[in-house]
Amino acid sequence: MPANNPGIEDLTTPALLLDEAKMMRNIERLEAHARSLGVALRPHLKTAKSVEIALRLGGGVSAPITVSTLAEAEVFHDAGFTDILYAVGIAPQKLARVQALRAKGCDLVVILDSPEQASAVAKAGVPALIEIDSDGHRGGRLADDPALIEIGKILGAKGVLRGVMTHAGESYTVRGAAAHAEFAELERSSAVKAADALRAAGLPCPIVSVGSTPTAHAARDLTGVTELRAGVYMVFDLVMAGLEVCTLDDLALSVLTTVIGHQPAKGWVMIDAGWMAMSRDRGTQTMDVDQGYGVVCDVEGRVLRDLIVRSANQEHGIIALRSGAKGPLPDLPVGTQLRILPNHACATAAQYDRYHVLSAAGGPLKTWHRFGGW
Amino acid sequence: MPANNPGIEDLTTPALLLDEAKMMRNIERLEAHARSLGVALRPHLKTAKSVEIALRLGGGVSAPITVSTLAEAEVFHDAGFTDILYAVGIAPQKLARVQALRAKGCDLVVILDSPEQASAVAKAGVPALIEIDSDGHRGGRLADDPALIEIGKILGAKGVLRGVMTHAGESYTVRGAAAHAEFAELERSSAVKAADALRAAGLPCPIVSVGSTPTAHAARDLTGVTELRAGVYMVFDLVMAGLEVCTLDDLALSVLTTVIGHQPAKGWVMIDAGWMAMSRDRGTQTMDVDQGYGVVCDVEGRVLRDLIVRSANQEHGIIALRSGAKGPLPDLPVGTQLRILPNHACATAAQYDRYHVLSAAGGPLKTWHRFGGW
Repeated sequence: MPANNPGIEDLTTPALLLDEAKMMRNIERLEAHARSLGVALRPHLKTAKSVEIALRLGGGVSAPITVSTLAEAEVFHDAGFTDILYAVGIAPQKLARVQALRAKGCDLVVILDSPEQASAVAKAGVPALIEIDSDGHRGGRLADDPALIEIGKILGAKGVLRGVMTHAGESYTVRGAAAHAEFAELERSSAVKAADALRAAGLPCPIVSVGSTPTAHAARDLTGVTELRAGVYMVFDLVMAGLEVCTLDDLALSVLTTVIGHQPAKGWVMIDAGWMAMSRDRGTQTMDVDQGYGVVCDVEGRVLRDLIVRSANQEHGIIALRSGAKGPLPDLPVGTQLRILPNHACATAAQYDRYHVLSAAGGPLKTWHRFGGW
Repeated sequence: MPANNPGIEDLTTPALLLDEAKMMRNIERLEAHARSLGVALRPHLKTAKSVEIALRLGGGVSAPITVSTLAEAEVFHDAGFTDILYAVGIAPQKLARVQALRAKGCDLVVILDSPEQASAVAKAGVPALIEIDSDGHRGGRLADDPALIEIGKILGAKGVLRGVMTHAGESYTVRGAAAHAEFAELERSSAVKAADALRAAGLPCPIVSVGSTPTAHAARDLTGVTELRAGVYMVFDLVMAGLEVCTLDDLALSVLTTVIGHQPAKGWVMIDAGWMAMSRDRGTQTMDVDQGYGVVCDVEGRVLRDLIVRSANQEHGIIALRSGAKGPLPDLPVGTQLRILPNHACATAAQYDRYHVLSAAGGPLKTWHRFGGW
């Protein structure tokens, strides 16, 4: 990154910065890993929510993508994407919107885990994956649940059974590649077992979809799997660094903020990035290193040792040395610009309607729109 | 509220609902209290961020208001408001935007607590209040800090000293009106002491501004104070109910959601309101009653006993009985609409760009725009 990127000093703070070079490095890392495993990558765009970012993924608009809302499906289809998985259990009331997108040429696929949903989906003629519970984290059926075959038959009778999918959300509770590889194998073995059970019942199961950011990076063998999903890997965050999926240097998102005051007797520096700017996410609270509301960097992105955002109100953040650190507190006069690395990129980015992009090619900042809503 | 308000069943979930009758009752409650104390009310619009709500406050566009961002100041000034306090310590870089608004006829006043800020503000000719630290919560100067007079003289020399302000954010850490009244007296006595010190130094101090939602409701005597600030009182939330500032029946905001799955063996009901819909705020986590990510109500707003959102992912919430509750879990089939009362109205509302309003007059839902950003 250039030492004085033109434009940063002119931004209204707080503002969301995206380091394009780091993002591209992260994207290429997982694409190379997926290629080496022989599976397709179906990036999850719930973190990015940006057409500009989606177009920088390996495959362009013909690539498969994953979304977390129908609003995302609509925006990305408008941008040209046609192979889209909506990876949140379908509510029957949402099928009309799914059908409308499909009628426009979008191959939008939904997920479900109950006969009731399967009946509604089959009646609507919408293709679906059956969600498999590989780790007890959230929704889905166990691979040996007899209901799996019942659901498969309801979908199969109308030709809308596309396969199975699973997500090991519990992989976020363990640290290091070896531990994540165990969850990756749990995803793989559960999904493949479910696919085999469906096939043994005479049902088709062309798609076997697995993934989370920790397991996607740690997987060593994905035999039987057809595609890998992950989302936050494009930009990473402090939670992912805490899990050792990446290092602090890989974090592509930061919040630009300005110093607005001090309480010297307490060792506090007040900034204009509160929880509205960082989100209320405290994902590192129960990790080995609690990063408060974020790690403090100088305006060029260099980490200021042991300095974190210790607490936050709506539009105020309080920076202090982390508990046990010796200091001294650096001199940060009112008006100093700083950058804060976020706990959870999905939550922090959701507080903004645009990325201010530090271009990989250098030169002035670019502005990329991002969207929210449902 | 009508039993079957037309329109709710047609909303895409998650969606933010606002009960207008409850909001008007809350607004009138604090306005009556301020009148009884003989002080002006300067509502804080950081929670509402809606012109429609601002216009339903007592005084119309001639009333004083408080904002937390310059974007709020700009929107509310465009709507006709002219007496605006920007209640976050000013960064010198933001003064050009403040001056632009003032040049358009907006009497926008800023706050500060350092000689450096005072010099920049005086040079820009922008009026300011000096922030007083009444409870050690955040920014501000102690009422007996000699720097107060130094700052006052810098502002006074250019005729831009408007007065003092304080906010007892620590009032959120105690429960009940008696405890909140002690913080209200701390706000009053600190602000009045600072005003007296400035006046004794020959400086003007026409405005003495205090407030937080708990202290504003509990204050019994505001002698020497000229105005009272509060924000979340318009809609309240579970944190305010936990502090006994209101009851659950006063909560005017809720999130409409739809059931999307079950894990019966675990007693889980999955909904499409995750942290994106509720925010990551866990403000009740350390209170006497931890409400998880929110209290579950039926679609008409009746609390379902002992049912809370126990955990949340981005677009998934998991409803379960609160710890220790006996059950049974009510029957909530896929497709059932529910309403969730939020921990923290400011954070939850920030996730949406509109309110779906249950009209006080009955009839169909209204849609009120809300905005974010800086």
